[in-house]
Parts: sequence; C-alpha cells; structure tokens
Amino acid sequence: MFVNLPEIVKRGFPVLTWGKNYSLDVAIADLVAGITIGLTLIPQCIAYASLAGLGPEYGLYSSLCGGIIYVIFGAVPELNIAPTALLSLLTFTFTNNASFGKVKAAILLCFLSGVIELLCGILHLGFLVDFVSTPVVAAFTSAGALTIASSQIKNLLGLNFKADSFAAVWSNVFQHITETKMWDSILGIGCCVVLLLLRKLKDYGSPPLDDHKSVSKSKKLIWFCSVARNAFVVIACAATAFFFDSCGEKPFSLTSKVPEGLPAFTNPVAEAHHGNATTSVVDMMKELGAGIFAVPFVAILGNVAIAKAFAKGKVIDASQEMIAVGMCNLIGAFFGSYPVNASFSRAAVSNASGVRTPLAGIYTGVMVILALTFLTPYFSYIPKPTLAAVIICAVIFMVEVALTKLIWRINKIDLVPFFVTLVFCLVLGIEFGILIGVCVDILFLLYRTARPKVVFDYVNENSTSYVKITPTSAIFFPSVEYVREKVMQNSVKYIFLVFDCQRVSKLDFTAAKSLSALLDDLSKMQKVVVFYRPPAPVVKILTKVAEGGPKIAETEENLYEILKEHDKTRRENIAISVEEKESNTQL
Amino acid sequence: MFVNLPEIVKRGFPVLTWGKNYSLDVAIADLVAGITIGLTLIPQCIAYASLAGLGPEYGLYSSLCGGIIYVIFGAVPELNIAPTALLSLLTFTFTNNASFGKVKAAILLCFLSGVIELLCGILHLGFLVDFVSTPVVAAFTSAGALTIASSQIKNLLGLNFKADSFAAVWSNVFQHITETKMWDSILGIGCCVVLLLLRKLKDYGSPPLDDHKSVSKSKKLIWFCSVARNAFVVIACAATAFFFDSCGEKPFSLTSKVPEGLPAFTNPVAEAHHGNATTSVVDMMKELGAGIFAVPFVAILGNVAIAKAFAKGKVIDASQEMIAVGMCNLIGAFFGSYPVNASFSRAAVSNASGVRTPLAGIYTGVMVILALTFLTPYFSYIPKPTLAAVIICAVIFMVEVALTKLIWRINKIDLVPFFVTLVFCLVLGIEFGILIGVCVDILFLLYRTARPKVVFDYVNENSTSYVKITPTSAIFFPSVEYVREKVMQNSVKYIFLVFDCQRVSKLDFTAAKSLSALLDDLSKMQKVVVFYRPPAPVVKILTKVAEGGPKIAETEENLYEILKEHDKTRRENIAISVEEKESNTQL
Repeated sequence: MFVNLPEIVKRGFPVLTWGKNYSLDVAIADLVAGITIGLTLIPQCIAYASLAGLGPEYGLYSSLCGGIIYVIFGAVPELNIAPTALLSLLTFTFTNNASFGKVKAAILLCFLSGVIELLCGILHLGFLVDFVSTPVVAAFTSAGALTIASSQIKNLLGLNFKADSFAAVWSNVFQHITETKMWDSILGIGCCVVLLLLRKLKDYGSPPLDDHKSVSKSKKLIWFCSVARNAFVVIACAATAFFFDSCGEKPFSLTSKVPEGLPAFTNPVAEAHHGNATTSVVDMMKELGAGIFAVPFVAILGNVAIAKAFAKGKVIDASQEMIAVGMCNLIGAFFGSYPVNASFSRAAVSNASGVRTPLAGIYTGVMVILALTFLTPYFSYIPKPTLAAVIICAVIFMVEVALTKLIWRINKIDLVPFFVTLVFCLVLGIEFGILIGVCVDILFLLYRTARPKVVFDYVNENSTSYVKITPTSAIFFPSVEYVREKVMQNSVKYIFLVFDCQRVSKLDFTAAKSLSALLDDLSKMQKVVVFYRPPAPVVKILTKVAEGGPKIAETEENLYEILKEHDKTRRENIAISVEEKESNTQL
Repeated sequence: MFVNLPEIVKRGFPVLTWGKNYSLDVAIADLVAGITIGLTLIPQCIAYASLAGLGPEYGLYSSLCGGIIYVIFGAVPELNIAPTALLSLLTFTFTNNASFGKVKAAILLCFLSGVIELLCGILHLGFLVDFVSTPVVAAFTSAGALTIASSQIKNLLGLNFKADSFAAVWSNVFQHITETKMWDSILGIGCCVVLLLLRKLKDYGSPPLDDHKSVSKSKKLIWFCSVARNAFVVIACAATAFFFDSCGEKPFSLTSKVPEGLPAFTNPVAEAHHGNATTSVVDMMKELGAGIFAVPFVAILGNVAIAKAFAKGKVIDASQEMIAVGMCNLIGAFFGSYPVNASFSRAAVSNASGVRTPLAGIYTGVMVILALTFLTPYFSYIPKPTLAAVIICAVIFMVEVALTKLIWRINKIDLVPFFVTLVFCLVLGIEFGILIGVCVDILFLLYRTARPKVVFDYVNENSTSYVKITPTSAIFFPSVEYVREKVMQNSVKYIFLVFDCQRVSKLDFTAAKSLSALLDDLSKMQKVVVFYRPPAPVVKILTKVAEGGPKIAETEENLYEILKEHDKTRRENIAISVEEKESNTQL
C-alpha cells in the first residue's frame, strides 16, 4: 500500500491548507470575530468554571489553550474550543468528590478525555456517535440545561446548601427559600432580565458580515451590544460591587480571590499529594470512573454535531475534528485546563461575526491573556448571582421545546426515546440518562430491523391469480422468522406466490437458511414460488438454497409466462394423479 | 375488547383440538412411535443424568414428567420433552458447586426455568430468540457437543480427575493418560464402534411409516435395530457386567446404586437443610446465578427451533410451545426433574416412526414407569464407559461441519460470528460463549443498519444530466450521517440530484432532520433535488422538512419535465445575476 505522506500531513494539520491563502481581508474578518467571541467567552468561562466547582481562573486557562491549539489542528472556523455548560456539569459530577482534590481531578479528566478523543479520531471510531439519535441528544441537552439552571438557582437567590441531583436541588430550594438574601436575589433576577432583553435586541440589529455593506452602523452596534451582553453585565455588576466595597459595604456574595497571570506548566498525570496521603494515578483514574468515557463521548458528540451544522455543505472530516478536540484537551491539561469542547451558541456568534479561518481563536486567546494579566484582581468583585444569571440565560435556550413539537409532527414514536432519556437524565443524572437513552435507541433499532414491513397484494390479472409478497427492506436474521410466519399466514389460499425482490438488497446466512426451509415447506404444500426481479447477490443465494433452481422473472411478461406454464403443468399433474388413484382402486 | 374464552382455552390446551379425532389408527401409530422413542430415550436419560452430575434415576424422573405434561399443553407430535445433552451440560455447570447439594440445585433450577419459560410464553417474549442468528446457534451447539464429548473421554478411558472447561479436560486427559483402565477403554471404544455401525445401518432400513406399505418387514427391522441401538448396547453391556459380577469379577467402572420406584413428591422451593446449615431460597437462587436465565433461554431456543423444523408448513404458536415446555419444567420439578426440553435427534426418530399426536408421550411415559419399577436394580450394572459411548455417539453429530461449509458458500462474513462464538464457548464455557455470540450478532446488525448501500448512477439522457441516488433500504438514525456524507461526496459535479425513494419505506425523526439539513445545504449550493416515487409516509415527511415544498416526480416523464423546467429557470437566473452585476459595476 502506498502511503501518501504529504496528504496525511495536510489532513492532520488543516492550518497548512487554509494558511496558504491568508490575506489582510481575512485577517480583519477574523479579528472582528475573535474580539466578539472573546467578549462572549470570557464571562462565560468564569461562570462555567464556577459551575464545574472550580475557580474562575480555570475557565480562562481552559479557553486559552483550547482556542490556540484548535488553530493548528482544526478545520472549521466557527468552532471555538473552550468550557461549555454540559462538560462543566459533567466535570463537576465526576470530580466533585475526588479524594485527591477537585482541581487535580478535573485536570486529569481533561488529559484522559483528550487521550480518548485522540484515539477515537485516529481509530476512526467517530461513527459510534451516530448511534445516538437526535431525540436522545435533544433530551440529554435539555435535561443538562434544566439541571444546570436548577443548580444555579441557589446562587441566584444567595442560598447555601449542598445538593447534586435535579430533584434534590428543588427540594432544597423550597426548604431554604426563607433564607433568600435580598440583595443577591435582586441583582440576580435583575441580571437575568437585562440579559434576556439584550438577547432580544439582536433581532433588531445586524451582524457585521462584510457582504451586507448597506446595513447601517447603528444596527451593527445594536447587534454587537446584544452579543457582548455577558461582558457588559459582568463588568457593570463587578463595578457596582467594587463601588460598594470601597464604601465598606458587601451586599452581594462575591467570587473568591483569583491568582494573577498565566497558567503554570503542570504534569496532569503526576501522583497527587494531599495532606499526608499520596494517590497513585491508577487510583485517581478509578475515582474518576465512568467519567473517563462519559466526558469524551459527550465532547465528541457535541463537537461533531456542531462541526456538521456549520459545514455549509462541505464534508466534515469527523476523525480530524476528534483529533483536534483531543489535542486541545491533551495539551490543555498541562496548562490547567479542564475538559473543553465546542459550543453551539459560540459557533453561532462566530458565524454571524463573519469568521473566516480558525485563526480567530488566536485573537480570542490574546484577549484571554490580557484578561488574565490585567483583570484578575477585579474578578473577585464579580457577584455570584451575576454569574448564575449568565449561566441560566445561556442554558435555558438549550431546552428543546420547539424540537419536541417537531418530533410530534414528523414521527411521534420518537418521543418515547426523548422522554425516557429526559426523565432518566433528571432522576438519575445526565450521565446515566444518556446511557439509558442509547439503550432505548438501540432497542428501537433492533425492533425495526426485526419487524420489517411486508406487503401482501392479492393480484388477479391475465386469468391468473397470485399473492405478491413485497418485503420493503433487507432481511437480516432477527426478522426471518417473522417474515416466514407472515408469508405462511397470508398465502394460505393461493397456489402462486410471487416474491417481489426489488427492495431486498441483501440476505444474511440465517435469512437464506430460513428461506430455504420456507421454500421446502411451500413446495410440500404444492405451491409455486416465483422471484420477481431479485438483484444479483440475491439471485446468487437463491440458486444455492432453492431445490431444483429458483424461478426468476425479470419482467412482468416473463412472470405471467412462468405462472401460466406452471398452472398448465399443475392441472395436468392433478389429472394424472386422479387417473392413478382411479386405476389403483380398480386393481 | 371481547375475550373469546373458548378460543383461549383451545389455544392453551391443544389436546382439546387433536384429542377430538383420536382414532384407533392414530393410537396404533402413536404406540409404535412411543415405544421406539422409549428405547432411545431411556438409555439416553440415564447417560445424560450422569452428564448433569446426577444419579440415573433423575434422568428417568425428568423424562417421565416431560413426556406426560407435554401431552396436555403441546401441539407438535414430534416433540419429546426430556433431558438433552446441552441442558444437562448447563445444569452441571450451574449446579455442580452448589453449597446446598447439586440434586436440590438442579430441581430448583428446573422449577425456575419453568417459571421463566412460562412467563416468556404468556408475555409473548419468544421473539427474543430471533436475535440469535443461525451461525451463532450452530457454533453454540457445536461447542456444546465438543465440550460434552470431551467431558466423557475420562469415563470412556476410566480416568479419574476433575476438570470443567474444554481446555482443562484435554490437558488432564494427556496428564492422566497412563492411568487408563484397560477394560474400561476396550468396552468404551467398542461401544462407540458398535453404536456408530448401528447408526449407519439406518441407511439400509426403512422407517415404519404407514403409507409405505410396500417396504419389506426386514427393512423395517433393520431400521428399528438402528434406532434402538442405545438400548441394545446398554442392555448387552449391563448383562456382561452382571455376568462378570456373578463370577466375582468387576472389570468395569459401574454406575452407582439406584433407588427403586417412582419419584416422590418434593417441594422444589423449600429451603435446603444440609448438615447443620440452612440455605434460604433467595440464597439458593443467588448461587444459581445466571443459570436461572441461561437455562430457559437455551431451552426456548432449542424448542422453538425444533418445533419450527417439524412444522411442515403449519404456523407454530411459539408462545404456546414456550408455555408447554415451561409447564413440563414447572410441574416436573415437584417430581424430581432437572431442566428438560426437546431434542432434535429424538424429534427426528419420532417423525420417522410415524408419530401422529403428542399422546405418543404417554406410551413412552409408561415405558419409563416400567423401567423405574422393574429395572432399577439392574441399572447399577450399566458400565460408565458404555454411558460415555452413548453420549459421545449422540453429540458428535451435533458438531456442525456441513453448516460451516454452507455458510462459506452463502455468506462468508457470517463465519465471523460462528467462529467467535465457537472459540469463546470452548475457552470461557458455553454459557459465556453464546452471550458473546449474541453481542457479535447485534454489532453486525447495527453495522448493517448504520451502513446501508447507496447507489449513485450518473444519468445523461434527454439532454439533461443528473445523479440518481438510490438508498436500498429504510434510513434509520445510525445511517443518516453516512448517507448524507456519501451524497455530498458523490454529487459534487452535478446540479440535479434525483433521490430514487422507491425502496425507502420509512424515515425516523433523526433521518428527517438530517435530510432537512442536507436539503438546506444543497439549496445553498444551488442544487436542485427531485424525489422520485416516494411512498406516502415519506411524502408526508418531505413536505414537512423541505423548504418551499419538495419536488416530487411520480413517473419518469414527470421527472424529466421537472428537470427541464428547473434547468430553464436556472439559466435565466444566471443571466439575470450576470446582468445585475454588470449594472452594478456601471453605477
């Protein structure tokens, strides 16, 4: 086999392809998009880090590495690899109780996720995510959003309790509702209102796409204000808190102190020392448990789906996208990153901002570096209710209400996997829910394969009557007995059976064997079976299983010829056997 | 809903249907068949009981209940519910190490298997066995036969060691080969040779079917001697041993003493007292473990397959067959039965003997009662090597060599599940092997569903050129991304895409959603998509997902009309846009 090395290098480093034609025009477009994304990203990262149970700096560390490394390995300009709500929630779920410290656990999880994503990319295992249907993904996302939004209610109202699951959170909220902190609630709910209004504003503005030059500057400004709403709200609230602080007042719950500067290089797979104890990497992995697979699975699921959504008709190299996100996590872990992937909302902003190449990530990265260098002292003034509002206003739109209606309209039965997944995600946690969803998906699939539609037409034409049997898909082993039974039940009164094989593209061994038994049984019952237009591979099998060779009709005329001929022989045979019997009785 | 009680009673007790027309003719046919079966069955039961690690009497108890109860609940005359080689092996596997005694364990396993079989029958869960493909069943049976034959080598040669797995047995045989007992070996190998020769004799005889009256009596006698070979060999060997014993010699390893008379009524679900300890039923069930599911699964698998093989074109009520075998086990357990089901070889003998109704089981039952009443004192003279020879000569024909060749000829890829199952059955034990086989089956199935064949034809006719895309089966969620990618890759150079939907019978929600995205992408790329002859449910979905309504062609002329019209508009649009650009540059 000939290995095309330049081609492999080109596939592995898409930067070599798009980098060749990088021009000033493209650079300006990327700069505008990069800055816009930065303004969305930085406040989101701080908020999502708190969701993952980590300090704000880890959110920024994560977005820094993700953005820069994707430039080298990624091919889809719209994708921005950074913390997301779902992965933050999963990180929290799997690392919160780690005995060796949750920061260490989150970073190790990031590293291991990266390794698995990379392996999936190299081994082309991305097709595995195809086995999760859209309804299950939608239910998983919705349940995740509901869980996240619920988990933030306590920060929004300034409550103080510990609860993980959806049900526990709400029961605690009602138990502790009397402890609501007034100023926290006012600020939190106020932030929500402002964020939702600013979000709505986008409909009245226009994105800065370069080919719409007729759009007025004010419209572009409106759009920009809407997109940068998180930044505005966070800055305004932090400024307010700073002002109160300088007056000696502390009305809001604030974020904890944040270390200044860029992330230090750390080894994610070093054994952990905590107190007097040491935990080996193997024990650390045991504690992370199923998270090692759940996190990369969800990351790949999201990334491939988003990449495809923004493919604009181009074919996405799903394996390369997995390698890219894998490298982001793998390398990121050495610089304090927790698990990252692409986010649909950021990709949408990126797309609307007119991004042209993944290099936009560099500009976003520079903004993150600036934030880490100059703004960290002020991060501790960001009120917790503000971050809760940022999170809630981001995730509530992930609850797929419209999609539910669409499923109802298109294929009602698909609501079953949707609601099963949703309920189990909310009751048992999203990591179990999606597993159950996938199982339901596969059961549905197996059922559909096991019970294909077989159409029976009773034809009475050209003075012959026959039953036409049309299986509407390939026949694989789970359906053979069902098909055989249907054929037996529905052809009792007919002598001639015509199998319309046009849609049967394939038969496996079990199907061939069962067909052979069926043909034997039918021939014992003096029935005549004709195969109408079987494709070549099916003909090959038929000649092997049908005793005395199968009767095959290639055209309709052909079919009637065969039927008439057999009708004649049959009548003659009956006559002969009657004669024989008569002669026997005479003896 | 109207419940047709008489119909339900009639279905539940097939005896009411066939019993009505029971005549002397039928009774004689059944009697001949019943006695023939009895002569095969009794020596087999004694041998299989030793395979299951139980005394010979349990084999007879089991065949007694199975045969009589099936008369009431069963519908297939050929079926004879009694111990079989595979179930005996499984019983040994799951009960041999039971802390509360293996007899008690085997009887409890029989009861629980009966309960599960009954439930599967009532809940119509029989379709589950459809998910085991013929290659996997064949591999399981072959591996079972090899394991059983191997396990008997030690009895054949008079060796003494303990080993369960296939590999362990053979390594022990070679280690202990020097301890071979001469007389045991001579008798065992001699029995094998005689049994195989008698088996071969069948080809020169004729079965006593009443419609072949011209066949000579000597031919019938030859056939009968061949079928009753087990009985002859066992009686001859026991007589020899008795003779030696009366001379004060004991050259052979003999069977242990057997209690006389019919089985006593026992409660299979009573707690077990052994020594000073008491084991509760729950603890007993825990010890049986996966056996509680493995045994009924294999029993149902075998029973339904055998019932279908002898259906002769009639539709088998698989649920009723499950209920019948369930009742045999459930009631049998109260009379000392261990798990039973039908055996293919006995069904074949039964069929050849001209059995007419399940009542033949009563005659066989009477023979078993006679054996238990009068012959038990002589059972202890049956040499162990003789029983080993009976077992080996029965199971070696279960190794599916011919089928392997057939799979190779019909569908080579199906050899993968065959050999995977075979190897794992031999290495890990047949109970694990079949589980792995079913997993491989399902993976194959999922892969086939995920990667349907899509045919691309590049058509250039009637002065239009288009690409015709033909998916050859229903499109379900795991295949949508694959199909979408294929379409994108293979239609780059064409403006007109024609989806030939004749074979697409169904789209699930994920497929519809993906199709919608594909249509969006294609329309952005200025491509025109026409659907050729979609069936009604697909049209319904298309109208919901295609923006501006789908273009549907019902006939070929229709298709060319649509294509030509769109070609015209497209050319005009290009002309207009060129004009616009020109006028823009002029401004």
